[in-house]
Amino acid sequence: MSELQRIAEELDAADPLAAVRGKFVLDDVTYLDGNSLGALPAHVPGRVEDVVRRQWGELRIRSWEESGWWTAPERIGDRIAPLVGAAAGQVVVGDSTSVNVFKALVAAVRMAEQDGRTGGGSERRNRPVRDEILVDATTFPTDGYIAESAARMTGCTLRPVAPAEVPSALADRGGRTAAVLLNHVDYRTGRLHDLPALTAAVHAAGAYAVWDLCHSAGALPVGLDEHGVDLAVGCTYKYLNGGPGSPAYLYVRRDLQPRFDSPLPGWNSHAEPFGMRSDYAPASGAPRGRVGTPDILSLLALEAALDVWDEEGVSVAAVRAKSLALTDFFLRCVGAYVPDGRVESVTPEAHAERGSQVALRCEDAGEVMKQLIERGVVGDYRAPDVLRFGFTPLYVGFADVEWAARVLARTLAG
Amino acid sequence: MSELQRIAEELDAADPLAAVRGKFVLDDVTYLDGNSLGALPAHVPGRVEDVVRRQWGELRIRSWEESGWWTAPERIGDRIAPLVGAAAGQVVVGDSTSVNVFKALVAAVRMAEQDGRTGGGSERRNRPVRDEILVDATTFPTDGYIAESAARMTGCTLRPVAPAEVPSALADRGGRTAAVLLNHVDYRTGRLHDLPALTAAVHAAGAYAVWDLCHSAGALPVGLDEHGVDLAVGCTYKYLNGGPGSPAYLYVRRDLQPRFDSPLPGWNSHAEPFGMRSDYAPASGAPRGRVGTPDILSLLALEAALDVWDEEGVSVAAVRAKSLALTDFFLRCVGAYVPDGRVESVTPEAHAERGSQVALRCEDAGEVMKQLIERGVVGDYRAPDVLRFGFTPLYVGFADVEWAARVLARTLAG
Repeated sequence: MSELQRIAEELDAADPLAAVRGKFVLDDVTYLDGNSLGALPAHVPGRVEDVVRRQWGELRIRSWEESGWWTAPERIGDRIAPLVGAAAGQVVVGDSTSVNVFKALVAAVRMAEQDGRTGGGSERRNRPVRDEILVDATTFPTDGYIAESAARMTGCTLRPVAPAEVPSALADRGGRTAAVLLNHVDYRTGRLHDLPALTAAVHAAGAYAVWDLCHSAGALPVGLDEHGVDLAVGCTYKYLNGGPGSPAYLYVRRDLQPRFDSPLPGWNSHAEPFGMRSDYAPASGAPRGRVGTPDILSLLALEAALDVWDEEGVSVAAVRAKSLALTDFFLRCVGAYVPDGRVESVTPEAHAERGSQVALRCEDAGEVMKQLIERGVVGDYRAPDVLRFGFTPLYVGFADVEWAARVLARTLAG
Repeated sequence: MSELQRIAEELDAADPLAAVRGKFVLDDVTYLDGNSLGALPAHVPGRVEDVVRRQWGELRIRSWEESGWWTAPERIGDRIAPLVGAAAGQVVVGDSTSVNVFKALVAAVRMAEQDGRTGGGSERRNRPVRDEILVDATTFPTDGYIAESAARMTGCTLRPVAPAEVPSALADRGGRTAAVLLNHVDYRTGRLHDLPALTAAVHAAGAYAVWDLCHSAGALPVGLDEHGVDLAVGCTYKYLNGGPGSPAYLYVRRDLQPRFDSPLPGWNSHAEPFGMRSDYAPASGAPRGRVGTPDILSLLALEAALDVWDEEGVSVAAVRAKSLALTDFFLRCVGAYVPDGRVESVTPEAHAERGSQVALRCEDAGEVMKQLIERGVVGDYRAPDVLRFGFTPLYVGFADVEWAARVLARTLAG
């Protein structure tokens, strides 16, 4: 047994989350792709079967009330809320991340417009029109595409900016920025951006901050309420293990909810959805972010998956501590096993700047990942040259990490 | 045995679809609410279990390719296509009906705008600006709410018009109408609108026709291709039995697809979704209507449910013939059992104007439906005064119909 193997054994033995692994369906594959699709929690199939056979099959239409289907979007939102540092009543689940980015950005621009209209006389005349959206230039593409559409449909211009340059970009534009769309963790590099400081900078410029939490929720503390984030969205199939394409969520800060003016005001967001009124009157609270009939099977699989967070010892703090230990250890093992220069980590060394993944730049990354997968180490490849390894602390152990680094080194050796 | 019971028995004995009932999970409840939530096809739980346990649990991320998850939206769209009279390659499944109404209407307005820009010189100058959307004034509310948002975001005005008055409304406006959103079957009354004639009228005025098929698909012939419909949307949890909140679909006529300019251009609609490009370039064909990551559990439950349409003897024509026989027979039984004047059918007598439901106006409709449900006859209530009974020919029989009318009469007698 090598030194690193011995250390892995010690780390696993001391891991307070080690027992949680048993709550997931895993096999002899080393699964480091939970940042793309989380593994299956072992109790989920039984719960889904009950939803299908009993709730749908036997109760049928009655389940909308009796099985709590109707209120699932906000009930499950309240389960996600503490994981992203939000008090209850501010998160609603439904639709895809892309659709939620659209809702959040358009609503943010409308809030900025409304700010421009309030206040009287000279104050109002001197206020610049807010007609610009800033978007993270390194964003996962869908956020940029949707931001472009939101800008087009609200008469704004869209300006891609590297997150670090957001404060100076805001200053440049002299108060014309309406909203800023940022990623908490970069999907490619795994870089964790400074949510508190960037949110403060956006607010100082009088704009609204919309955060995409896809790669942070369930992996590290977010602190939406604490840092005064305005709106946020995220997916649930990565570190929250909700299953393939499980619905995304939308956070609207409580004091902004009365001003949340949705571009997708479907009947589920109506104050009286079964009143069948031809005039739209929005619901108050988080349900205002709903649109159409929720996809119950996917939603309730997610609800079941979230039970893992009620296990003894499981908390965002514990997950974050283990996540950093896992990524530290992976970088150490890669450093020890892989010849210098063969790969280059594009994930920051500093803990304050690191999410829960390690991204290694590497020639032939696509081919290397293919071989890794054939050898039972599953990460993923992001064009043009990145090997991504995601570390879900709920089910990844230190021996997995050491083994993955060893197989990577062997694969790179050819 | 009464005369009507005897006739019911004969009709059931002669019903070519009678055996299909055995493909569904049913019990001693008389379920006449399939126009709200279709019953569970018996083979669906096993298929969902395979999706959860094997595809998600064992194959995990590999299922995006190996289990055909990635292509499910258009593959399942091609299963729905023949049921709505569409050739393959024009229907894509995903998102809610509300979200698809938004995509379709905004895209229709943009096509009309584009028409206004093409053609040269004097012709162009004489052409009116198309800045109005007509919407069915009796529509299920969400279509109206979303149409209002689409109008607001495209700089159009929205004008609610009764479907029968659409031709005159189009003429009134002298070519200013960009798009018309109509329901094939009215959700409340069960009235079937004249899709061929209304579509032709919309086209004659140079506008685009968007049809909502929620209450017709799977119950009667639609003929999208035959009648030259431009865009259409529909849900899948009513007569298609896809399960609670199963995803909706979007039809874009093939020759319009290159001009389909989505307001929700998520990464799933990109020509090269894994290219991770910052510039948006739309996919060709039906996938252009996709947005974000599809909700696989709900989608694949729907795919399984559609297998019922491959059973011997099952066709839209057979379903339509039985549907009309069922609603005819229900109206006959109600006429025989319920005292004159106690209820009034708001569903048209003429077959050409009838969907697959019967709506009875009735005092205390809410209370009456509650009692009916307690007695094991499940329909639903729509404010303020309508009892709705939906007849899904795949699993409702004539004895059900006679029994439901008998229980209704008993309930109304107090």
